[in-house]
Amino acid sequence: MPDTHAPDTHADTFRVSTGPLPSSRKVYVPGTRHPDIRVAQREIDLEPASGEAPVAVYDSSGPYTDPDVAIDIRQGLPPLRAGWISARGDVETVAGRAPKPEDNGRRPGAAAATPAFDRADRPVLKARAGRAVTQLAYARAGIVTPEMEYVAIRENLGRRALAEKMERDGESFGAAIPDHVTPEFVRDEIARGRAILPANINHPETEPMIIGRNFLVKINANIGNSAVTSSVAEEVDKMVWSIRWGADTVMDLSTGTDIHDTREWILRNSPVPIGTVPLYQALEKVNGRAEALTWEVFRDTLIEQAEQGVDYFTIHAGLRLAHIPLTARRVTGIVSRGGSIMATWCLAHHRESFLYERFADICDICRAYDIALSLGDGLRPGSLADANDAAQFAELETLGELTTIAWDHDVQVMIEGPGHVPMHKIKENMDKQLALCGEAPFYTLGPLVTDIAPGYDHITSGIGAAMIGWFGTSMLCYVTPKEHLGLPDRDDVKVGVVTYKIAAHAADLAKGHPAARLRDDALSRARFEFRWRDQFRLALDPETAERFHDQTLPAEGAKQAHFCSMCGPKFCSMKLSHDLRAMADAEDGMAQMSEKFREEGGTLYVTE
Amino acid sequence: MPDTHAPDTHADTFRVSTGPLPSSRKVYVPGTRHPDIRVAQREIDLEPASGEAPVAVYDSSGPYTDPDVAIDIRQGLPPLRAGWISARGDVETVAGRAPKPEDNGRRPGAAAATPAFDRADRPVLKARAGRAVTQLAYARAGIVTPEMEYVAIRENLGRRALAEKMERDGESFGAAIPDHVTPEFVRDEIARGRAILPANINHPETEPMIIGRNFLVKINANIGNSAVTSSVAEEVDKMVWSIRWGADTVMDLSTGTDIHDTREWILRNSPVPIGTVPLYQALEKVNGRAEALTWEVFRDTLIEQAEQGVDYFTIHAGLRLAHIPLTARRVTGIVSRGGSIMATWCLAHHRESFLYERFADICDICRAYDIALSLGDGLRPGSLADANDAAQFAELETLGELTTIAWDHDVQVMIEGPGHVPMHKIKENMDKQLALCGEAPFYTLGPLVTDIAPGYDHITSGIGAAMIGWFGTSMLCYVTPKEHLGLPDRDDVKVGVVTYKIAAHAADLAKGHPAARLRDDALSRARFEFRWRDQFRLALDPETAERFHDQTLPAEGAKQAHFCSMCGPKFCSMKLSHDLRAMADAEDGMAQMSEKFREEGGTLYVTE
Repeated sequence: MPDTHAPDTHADTFRVSTGPLPSSRKVYVPGTRHPDIRVAQREIDLEPASGEAPVAVYDSSGPYTDPDVAIDIRQGLPPLRAGWISARGDVETVAGRAPKPEDNGRRPGAAAATPAFDRADRPVLKARAGRAVTQLAYARAGIVTPEMEYVAIRENLGRRALAEKMERDGESFGAAIPDHVTPEFVRDEIARGRAILPANINHPETEPMIIGRNFLVKINANIGNSAVTSSVAEEVDKMVWSIRWGADTVMDLSTGTDIHDTREWILRNSPVPIGTVPLYQALEKVNGRAEALTWEVFRDTLIEQAEQGVDYFTIHAGLRLAHIPLTARRVTGIVSRGGSIMATWCLAHHRESFLYERFADICDICRAYDIALSLGDGLRPGSLADANDAAQFAELETLGELTTIAWDHDVQVMIEGPGHVPMHKIKENMDKQLALCGEAPFYTLGPLVTDIAPGYDHITSGIGAAMIGWFGTSMLCYVTPKEHLGLPDRDDVKVGVVTYKIAAHAADLAKGHPAARLRDDALSRARFEFRWRDQFRLALDPETAERFHDQTLPAEGAKQAHFCSMCGPKFCSMKLSHDLRAMADAEDGMAQMSEKFREEGGTLYVTE
Repeated sequence: MPDTHAPDTHADTFRVSTGPLPSSRKVYVPGTRHPDIRVAQREIDLEPASGEAPVAVYDSSGPYTDPDVAIDIRQGLPPLRAGWISARGDVETVAGRAPKPEDNGRRPGAAAATPAFDRADRPVLKARAGRAVTQLAYARAGIVTPEMEYVAIRENLGRRALAEKMERDGESFGAAIPDHVTPEFVRDEIARGRAILPANINHPETEPMIIGRNFLVKINANIGNSAVTSSVAEEVDKMVWSIRWGADTVMDLSTGTDIHDTREWILRNSPVPIGTVPLYQALEKVNGRAEALTWEVFRDTLIEQAEQGVDYFTIHAGLRLAHIPLTARRVTGIVSRGGSIMATWCLAHHRESFLYERFADICDICRAYDIALSLGDGLRPGSLADANDAAQFAELETLGELTTIAWDHDVQVMIEGPGHVPMHKIKENMDKQLALCGEAPFYTLGPLVTDIAPGYDHITSGIGAAMIGWFGTSMLCYVTPKEHLGLPDRDDVKVGVVTYKIAAHAADLAKGHPAARLRDDALSRARFEFRWRDQFRLALDPETAERFHDQTLPAEGAKQAHFCSMCGPKFCSMKLSHDLRAMADAEDGMAQMSEKFREEGGTLYVTE
């Protein structure tokens, strides 16, 4: 049994959620160009009697679901990419910035509440002078990195098998999804700026993943520190728990004290890219007074996080002084925290945003560590009334300008999007983003398609997320049921992640990703053949599926039964269809089928 | 406090869920053409200090949420429409069909487990010989019935107020949604067959409602009897609980024993139209042997339910003998219970479906009681693999033929639709239905946009429901989290209804219904102004919204606080936006705004 609740019951230890999902094995697929690559994927074994092959699924959960890996968060994960990074010969070890008390929000001399992670064996790396160490730079130089081959294998999951079985359909709205993903295709998409592979050279623990319109739609989960944390394991487990259910990246949005040390623990133990909003930490360093922010404090924070290994930065550089008056008559003003911080700064100084003016300097930093930029939408609408307004689109236009600057610096970039948008205005967001930002990946929050359902905003936003994912968004930022109301707990995080896996997968299906329907078909066959356990195993959330089944039919025998609780044993439509199929298999025509059936007693249902 | 859990704690009484929703009042709007009409709607009162007007919302909950009405389910609801029906002079009291033991699935002489409802003061009505007593017949004759005026007022909710404030937007895909709903518009839509007003003359307790593409999107909740029922109140409360959260109609899909008597209790206490699948009861009468079904048994069941007051019948008359072989190679065969019953019958007798052959006779019955037909999609796909296949569309074509026959008999008709459909194939369903069925209302189950999330199928289907609602579906049949797995409990029903209210409302917004956004905007203003209690009150589920908020910030004072648990008091983007707005209100330009702000200390946030 997976030891999923360890952190709750043993909060004083260093244990996190481990163990495989039901009936699942970890398999590692080797590379061809780079034979040392071992791409992790999950295979779900089905009932042997079914004759069904195992179903391979994309696996974001990292080594935590591999029973052969001993997990010790004090050691961190193995630095999978360390050899690949050093082999390129373009980085050097640096002393690194000395930690400061304010990095953790502590007064000078105050004792640490969180123990420091022992990073002795993980040097701080930086690009050698003048070198661009980004996947974009390599891609443009025609180099297929091990990271690129890794994602090619990872994305490719089952496509060959499917290609033999069915014709592709789907409507991709101008995306260019290949039948088979090659490493060269990955390189080309990165070189064009249509995809990013977030991979800070100081975060060698990541299993490479890609974000782009021609790949599988990804999801992000946000986590943040707790007011009262009893252990670092609890903080690390928020990340582990999110990726267990399918989060492809995790954003650490912590504020307050101990955020530097907590982030270090998360990074050293995270197999997925970690994103942050550096502005939040910079604000802490000036005691929450936005107008006291300076480029120097902000720059120092970028270096601090770059050296720790943050893979992408949300930077609200598109919110310019001139945009602010456009928000004055909005129903919900500025709802982005980063956006409102910068608006405050701009007004206080009556100056153009320092993030905008210093954007090239920010790119120089990102270039030296391969940090991707996520250009924040500080003016995203916080209500339907403000959707697609002048403020939002003015900022988007600026984000397009900034994209070009990032690309000029060999920096990978994606664009953040709304927010609250009614269904009929969603596509305009996607179309404008593609046009203004040169097809750089879009990364959206929802959007929520109505404002009237607090408590259910994973659903209001899941509807919008599925649609905008279909239209072309590359990564969907999850929303939990607690959105607008409170802080998500462990169950909320799981519901948020599963809801967004639904949205992302629905988008993949509609776009016509060649392998997307394999799992649906396997589950539907299991359903039709009354393989209840296989239904649970193939579900996004096997535990909930089994629990719901057992609430009505708890007996173990019911899991072998050729009926379910909806129609009961007396008349089951699925059972009947089996008999119809058997009859159709006979070649002797409908009249004889009918006769045979009546001779056999005419009972197509299971008698009680 | 609403006494919502009475049935659980006093299962031996006749109590059901009553009491208003938080801060809500029942108001009754009088008619103009028919001054005795009193149209129920709900008004939500907001904080007096806010200066906000009460928000009027559509109210499906009936008298149960009116504290001035004494509820006694032994008496049933007042027969609201009795006078309107008799005033038309086209019905007569008949003796009615004598109840039979098999109506309740009992052996002759067996004792009743469910007490019979005392219907002494509610005569059984039937059309006088040759008369068509349907709303369609009246509409075609140019008559605006009280029912039609009732729905005009009911649908019109707030439209005038909105029309003054904002321009309409939205994409209605060819719908013809008026700025203002007049009784004449209602009549015209019914006459064209584009809308139905289900209103059996033997169910005078209904508050009239309309189902059609040019009206608000409606939702249906399914209920069924329990294996062990401790009281009729529990069965009635399933209906009451569903409409409390927003179900516009309720389908009683009970099977087994006591279904006649249970249905009587539900009908006499239901202010919303009740739908059934008469085939289910007919099957019970032949002991579950589909091939033993006869037209005579089926016809007798129609009369039985017609006299009780069922408002719409699902009839699977579109599944023809020749369609059955089209399903043999499907991944999930025939998943509709009604469909598989009829397929079994057709094969057993190698005959055309008696529902198809006797369809005109069925229409004659419906015409004499004003029962609307819901043409069942017996061949709806049960998996993505089977979506939009030859079997499904062959049946849809037949449903188009049957629609014409129903209209020829003055019978109101709507068409049922899928099922499991990936997003890119949803619109084709809507477009084909409109083309083949002459714009008769579409009534769809979901559709589910992926098969891989059992336990979350309210969400997989909510995504498809919102989209197909936008494209033109008139009523959405809800799906609960227990779909495919087990029987929904009280919480599942609520989650299913609220999810579908989200989908229906999102569709209304996207179609451009003039009044749809009033509630969103009111809630967003409340959010922006930190009126926490108003946020809860305006939410689809005020109890859950408040509970989620209180999990993080339980103190009563937090509900007056100008911050929330997401950003905390130190830096709140909403608070900041208020200050920005205040500054923008000053006329003296940006530079002065900035200066003033700094003079005031530069603190835009609430200090701790």
